[in-house]
Amino acid sequence: MGFSIPEVSIRRLSIYLRCLRQALSRGEEWIQSTELARTCGISSSLVRKDLSYFGEFGIRGRGYRVEKLIKAIEEIIGIDEPIKVIIVGAGNLGRALIRHLQEIPYFRVVGAFDKNASKVGSTVSGVRVYPVAEMEKFSRETSPQIAVLAIPPEGLQETVDMVSRAGIRGVLSFALQGIKVPPGVVMNYVEIASEIEFLSYKIKKGSVA
Amino acid sequence: MGFSIPEVSIRRLSIYLRCLRQALSRGEEWIQSTELARTCGISSSLVRKDLSYFGEFGIRGRGYRVEKLIKAIEEIIGIDEPIKVIIVGAGNLGRALIRHLQEIPYFRVVGAFDKNASKVGSTVSGVRVYPVAEMEKFSRETSPQIAVLAIPPEGLQETVDMVSRAGIRGVLSFALQGIKVPPGVVMNYVEIASEIEFLSYKIKKGSVA
Repeated sequence: MGFSIPEVSIRRLSIYLRCLRQALSRGEEWIQSTELARTCGISSSLVRKDLSYFGEFGIRGRGYRVEKLIKAIEEIIGIDEPIKVIIVGAGNLGRALIRHLQEIPYFRVVGAFDKNASKVGSTVSGVRVYPVAEMEKFSRETSPQIAVLAIPPEGLQETVDMVSRAGIRGVLSFALQGIKVPPGVVMNYVEIASEIEFLSYKIKKGSVA
Repeated sequence: MGFSIPEVSIRRLSIYLRCLRQALSRGEEWIQSTELARTCGISSSLVRKDLSYFGEFGIRGRGYRVEKLIKAIEEIIGIDEPIKVIIVGAGNLGRALIRHLQEIPYFRVVGAFDKNASKVGSTVSGVRVYPVAEMEKFSRETSPQIAVLAIPPEGLQETVDMVSRAGIRGVLSFALQGIKVPPGVVMNYVEIASEIEFLSYKIKKGSVA
């Protein structure tokens, strides 16, 4: 595709996928864009526009074939094969993330890493905790695609550099910190504190989304 | 303010705040927009544009007074007074969130709620777990502003309605689910699975942000 697809449209694919999977589990074979829109809480014109970026999926009068659209979106996102994920940091947040992600069928947490010797060797939901020094060797053998960093902000730059050396190209961080992202690495932030700050701002302004 | 400030600019205020606090802890009294930009990893023209939405903070040639800009941003966001937060769901994720948020000085986790009787009465980082049925009474007495929902998607609608009845106006959810947001409530989603999906898409497309 030669044109640039808006980031929000890509993000909404995840929402469509969840709604479509629910429709499938209810035994629905076809879904109209109006119905998909309603269950996702997104306007039907937006649903049609988002999906049109990626191809022609609907049939006039019948809507979308649920199973086919799920497969198409999974392929677009790149989760038609399970994504191999490592968790760096096996503290409270890291362990909660392992348990959470292990419940999702299209993710596979292949290993966790911690620099604290007391955590190394333990197992969380069947996932073993390795010393960080072994990350490169581990990655050569297992080829994880994504590293989720559940570590304090101080160690962020060092860890991102290490993850990059290990050949892992996608990084999700829970610490919002200005760092230098190595070339070839895609980095994404989820910071709970700033999400709460954003809510606080919206409440204060009296603006309701 | 009569005009609408872009959501991304509001979100970047959280990043500026973190960088400014670090500058303050290094003993810096003044900071140039170029230096603030560098430490935040954001372009200096964007920094100046974002801050200009909220007022005139800089002085030509000297930059921003660090402490004054921190106070101004805290007031804009609404965290000049600590934000009172409740956590609904005291499972793995809920407990990790309590520990994480209790470490941030401008948040105060005032209580946690769970429907599981075996969790009620326990304490996590000094935060007591109450039965969900007590949320309304608790909120009348304590007036929390934000509810963070660490619950499975099935219970989301019911819980959001309950939180709304308790008079809590800001809701952060970790389950992405099409629900009906009650009037007067601002809702925000952090979904880890879809953040990883977004990374997967970016890696697959070979586009590096």
